[in-house]
Amino acid sequence: MAPQRSIPQITGSGPKRVTVVEVGPRDGLQNERVRVPTATKVQFIEALADAGLKRIEATSFVLPEAVPQLTDAEAVFAQLHRQPGVRYSALTPNMRGLERAEAANVREIAVFTAATDTFVRHNIRMTLEGSLEHLAPVVSRARADGVGVRGYVSTVFGCPYEGAVQPEQGIAVAERLFAMGVQEVSIGDTIGVATPGDVVRWLRAAEGRLPFDQLALHFHDTRGTALANVLVGLEFGIRTFDSTAGGVGGCPFAPGASGNLATEDLLYTLHGLGYETGVDLNKIMLASNIIANCLDHMLPSRVYQAARVTSCLPIGRS
Amino acid sequence: MAPQRSIPQITGSGPKRVTVVEVGPRDGLQNERVRVPTATKVQFIEALADAGLKRIEATSFVLPEAVPQLTDAEAVFAQLHRQPGVRYSALTPNMRGLERAEAANVREIAVFTAATDTFVRHNIRMTLEGSLEHLAPVVSRARADGVGVRGYVSTVFGCPYEGAVQPEQGIAVAERLFAMGVQEVSIGDTIGVATPGDVVRWLRAAEGRLPFDQLALHFHDTRGTALANVLVGLEFGIRTFDSTAGGVGGCPFAPGASGNLATEDLLYTLHGLGYETGVDLNKIMLASNIIANCLDHMLPSRVYQAARVTSCLPIGRS
Repeated sequence: MAPQRSIPQITGSGPKRVTVVEVGPRDGLQNERVRVPTATKVQFIEALADAGLKRIEATSFVLPEAVPQLTDAEAVFAQLHRQPGVRYSALTPNMRGLERAEAANVREIAVFTAATDTFVRHNIRMTLEGSLEHLAPVVSRARADGVGVRGYVSTVFGCPYEGAVQPEQGIAVAERLFAMGVQEVSIGDTIGVATPGDVVRWLRAAEGRLPFDQLALHFHDTRGTALANVLVGLEFGIRTFDSTAGGVGGCPFAPGASGNLATEDLLYTLHGLGYETGVDLNKIMLASNIIANCLDHMLPSRVYQAARVTSCLPIGRS
Repeated sequence: MAPQRSIPQITGSGPKRVTVVEVGPRDGLQNERVRVPTATKVQFIEALADAGLKRIEATSFVLPEAVPQLTDAEAVFAQLHRQPGVRYSALTPNMRGLERAEAANVREIAVFTAATDTFVRHNIRMTLEGSLEHLAPVVSRARADGVGVRGYVSTVFGCPYEGAVQPEQGIAVAERLFAMGVQEVSIGDTIGVATPGDVVRWLRAAEGRLPFDQLALHFHDTRGTALANVLVGLEFGIRTFDSTAGGVGGCPFAPGASGNLATEDLLYTLHGLGYETGVDLNKIMLASNIIANCLDHMLPSRVYQAARVTSCLPIGRS
């Protein structure tokens, strides 16, 4: 017989409220091959808010040549009917992006860098150090203007160029972002390689150095480990997780292969664990339906797929 | 700051050896629409053994009309080159199945029932109680003949007919199977509805009543929760898990939707947590390739899919 063991937070203690940050309209759509019409994006974002999400990353104010899928950022914000109490954010890579976002009356931005120098060089043709220096005035200006700022650290658990990444690397970058005035840092497993063991090691290393109540975990489900990794995050007291409705943003080179953790799969597990999110799983699937009709592949969310098949059966959680 | 917490077994203590029971050739193939040629099945099983698996459920001695995919059980065992040290088992629903298995020199069988009466009635036209009475002499005879016996309990976490299932129901059935002489019981989430919270509740209820070192957990990844559920099992000291290479057995009504937990995804997570399995992940993918060519859909294993896309990148775990 195994001795009695305890899994403290999963089964009850600790805050039972989790914040889901929906990044489908930005991180999801920028990784899809197709360009979704502006009106459909707006309909998608509005349906996500209708489902109860309070934080939605709506688009990105980048140069059109950088991300052709998101060239309509101004139009999205102009057409969007914003619900009170919902935070609609946008990625802004630089001061010009911030200016455009502010002109569109965006009240929350996100800036990004990575844990590994090579990834930053490949993505934005700067060194990691250079990217931090570049972001500091953007963050300062946003905060001075009363605009909220989230920071992304990519490749925290693995880099396509450098391979394995030590916890210290991502922690140091997150510390720099907090020191700059960023209010929340999203810790990204950009290529979806992290196992629960990696997450345990990372969070242990970060404990006492980073404020866990200002961290979000951002997993990709490329190897199916995202929900197991979320479980570890919950165990360590993390209560903010990023996801995309339907799992939109699946690897553009492999139809059916999975990218971002799906909001449906995250909600199904969180609700099953007794966490409150304030989000209606069934309504998220309605939002996913809107975008599913535009894409060239099936949405990878397993809960979404299962619902399509088993909706006639008396099993379901909302 | 979150207080220091411990996740005892995941990070080190407790046995670091896990047994993977490969059920692809039986549970996987019986849920595929296509019929795989006998020679391909044999090649598949031999490749699975070559990858280091020591337990493979090879087929089922059922009536041909019950499972048309597995009518060649005798031929599979006749053609199979068995490796020493590998346990090749077969499902046997009744005494006739046991006799056929013994005639084929099968040294380990599996019997099955469920936690819910309605599911048993729909599947084998017996009551749950009737199925247990029916299995008792099969188990006795097998044990008397020196044949190993595993028992399956289906619908432990949810039933397509009865909905939610109380832990007590599956525990009571597992107790009956152990009392009959079954040496291992596989606890099945047949329709893939269990969340980690359900698994915590079930294992807490079972602690002290069932021998955890003789339990296997059998998850389906229908809603993406299988690996998170495995993590809970590990935490409670369970060290035997069922899976299918490539995730073969995906829901036959939804191409791309997922059924059994994929062996690749299980190994990727176990190895990343520092568990030893004795199984070579890359060689499992070679075995999956054999069966992939016969199926009418992409294999659902996310690690398998990711390897196809990113094999040129320097990230990988074996």
